[in-house]
Amino acid sequence: MTAQTTADNRPTWVIIGGGNGGQSLAGHLAIMGLRVRLYDIFPETIDAIREAGGIQVEGAVAGFGNLELATTDIREAVAGADIVMVVAPAVAHREIAAACAPHLADNQVIFIHPGATGGALEFKKVLSDRNCKAAITLAEAESLLYACRCPKPGHAVIFGIKNELMVAALPAADTPRVVNLLDAAFPQIHAGANVLETSLSNANAMMHPAPTLLNTSLIESEHDWLYYWDGVTPSIGAFVEALDEERRAVAEAFGLKLPGILEWYRVHYGAVGNTLSEAVKRNQAYAEVKGQKTLHTRYLLEDIPTGLVPMALLGRIAGVEVARIETVIKLGEFLIGKDFTASGRNLENLGLAGMTIGEIQGYIETG
Amino acid sequence: MTAQTTADNRPTWVIIGGGNGGQSLAGHLAIMGLRVRLYDIFPETIDAIREAGGIQVEGAVAGFGNLELATTDIREAVAGADIVMVVAPAVAHREIAAACAPHLADNQVIFIHPGATGGALEFKKVLSDRNCKAAITLAEAESLLYACRCPKPGHAVIFGIKNELMVAALPAADTPRVVNLLDAAFPQIHAGANVLETSLSNANAMMHPAPTLLNTSLIESEHDWLYYWDGVTPSIGAFVEALDEERRAVAEAFGLKLPGILEWYRVHYGAVGNTLSEAVKRNQAYAEVKGQKTLHTRYLLEDIPTGLVPMALLGRIAGVEVARIETVIKLGEFLIGKDFTASGRNLENLGLAGMTIGEIQGYIETG
Repeated sequence: MTAQTTADNRPTWVIIGGGNGGQSLAGHLAIMGLRVRLYDIFPETIDAIREAGGIQVEGAVAGFGNLELATTDIREAVAGADIVMVVAPAVAHREIAAACAPHLADNQVIFIHPGATGGALEFKKVLSDRNCKAAITLAEAESLLYACRCPKPGHAVIFGIKNELMVAALPAADTPRVVNLLDAAFPQIHAGANVLETSLSNANAMMHPAPTLLNTSLIESEHDWLYYWDGVTPSIGAFVEALDEERRAVAEAFGLKLPGILEWYRVHYGAVGNTLSEAVKRNQAYAEVKGQKTLHTRYLLEDIPTGLVPMALLGRIAGVEVARIETVIKLGEFLIGKDFTASGRNLENLGLAGMTIGEIQGYIETG
Repeated sequence: MTAQTTADNRPTWVIIGGGNGGQSLAGHLAIMGLRVRLYDIFPETIDAIREAGGIQVEGAVAGFGNLELATTDIREAVAGADIVMVVAPAVAHREIAAACAPHLADNQVIFIHPGATGGALEFKKVLSDRNCKAAITLAEAESLLYACRCPKPGHAVIFGIKNELMVAALPAADTPRVVNLLDAAFPQIHAGANVLETSLSNANAMMHPAPTLLNTSLIESEHDWLYYWDGVTPSIGAFVEALDEERRAVAEAFGLKLPGILEWYRVHYGAVGNTLSEAVKRNQAYAEVKGQKTLHTRYLLEDIPTGLVPMALLGRIAGVEVARIETVIKLGEFLIGKDFTASGRNLENLGLAGMTIGEIQGYIETG
């Protein structure tokens, strides 16, 4: 089975996931004039979009994007697509990979946007376990290109678009091909060294679980609060900066020199400060980001098992001190009552079990 | 050197520590007609009390307690006293023991009130290291008898007196003698099995560090808040209940069956609830207990190194899972930037290094 060749030369994109990011991307790509399909598991979402014929986008991008297809049928979604862009909660990636596996074809590009930590590694392991033989190319982004929201199905608001988005393929040898292909739609995209660089650049893993846990009482209080402006107090910010040093030390053990979280804020938001607590308060993009009113959100349920858990395990392999990362994982496990270490992205389901640091480096470079 | 015999038969008490608890106890004992001395390291405190001639007490007890002596001279304070009652932050016990060591005499009773976790064990180790040969009796209380405050030196307010106070001696064989002696002043006192029972009944170690850490953002916010009523939210209360199960499991490994924290609230405050969060909200004694506005308070600086740290180490010896206790210790260490495990009450400075569980049990029973 090979990817269907199309009459015109435009590539066909299929977006897997009809949430905020998926609909915003589908709408934007269609407005660019590309051939776009959208897949979601929820019939309500798909029915509403199918009825509208596409997605109304406003904000940083405005217009109506006509979709070629909106479907809950993964086979139909994937068949003949050139680029399969997965835009879904990272905890769903494993299931999505399993659903896609029987339907993938040679030359398709799977782009996990974003992959959180270990998205491409996990996807590859699932395809291999499912005996998928298609010669696909697999890549992941460090984060989501947009700040966006969907007030209702078929209607997306893009508040802002990042200036830069790092992407890497697994194996890294495939990265130039992927960047070339995606660059046509998204000039913000640039190549990372390998998927460990994109995976270890997961800022959500730094900014979500620890501040959330240290805001437990405010979350369960009667107060309304702003996640970053109220939630990243001086002590919490200082703790996250120290946590971030552990993340960078893990990266360094794999030969990667990553910017710290303060530098990340400067680059991505133009927000500067001597401390993280100062920097986030100077980031106007956070002025209306409300604090949650329950502990059960993706800030813990996603960013621990698909962010901190694989980071800690990579740190362990590399002999790097990750005591803060492990403490946040543990505290989250205790407060939520889930064993994220068992259910999350561990070495087994990333396909790295038993590998040395050198073997992992070889695997991500050449596959 | 032996304890000075007094003309009348009344025992002489010296209170080591002129804080809230020390002044309240000194005043109360003097009002009872006992011979009372007070020692503190701060000349301002001692000068004010000396000038007043004693301590004015109000609240649950009212009157003026004449002191025989108020001094900053530990030798003068201790010489000839029958009962040396240490009422000081637990992190100061080590230093107090060292200061007392050269001046102790046969038959004196040292009563650490309260000892936090390991108070008597630590005191004994310091006396032994200092080569103190006096045949003293050493005991500790599970908590402080009063809820009290000193608005200024020489003036104490006792809000409430507990109905029960568990006391144990080290070795446990001495407990009956101590209880008999103290009972004359404090009929609330009853005997614990041994100092592990008093030490592992340290409720502050449960109620202070974990809620404080999980209230970090509220502590550093502009909001005023009530420590228990606002701070022990449903998730925080549930976490403390699970933490408390670890404490009880440690006790059980040493043959002690301790009541859980919910039962503790029922007994000590008549506060009942299906959950800890409910129970504390039904405890009227907490109606005005304000939340702190900095992380740097005794709730972390004392209750981690002299509460959770020794509990975790006893758990380790016993092979009991203490992952929650260890997580709270770690998080506190990271947020405060101190190595409480090194500086706190560890097996070395409790005099338990290298002992098995059976050897510890022998040591606390017979010395």
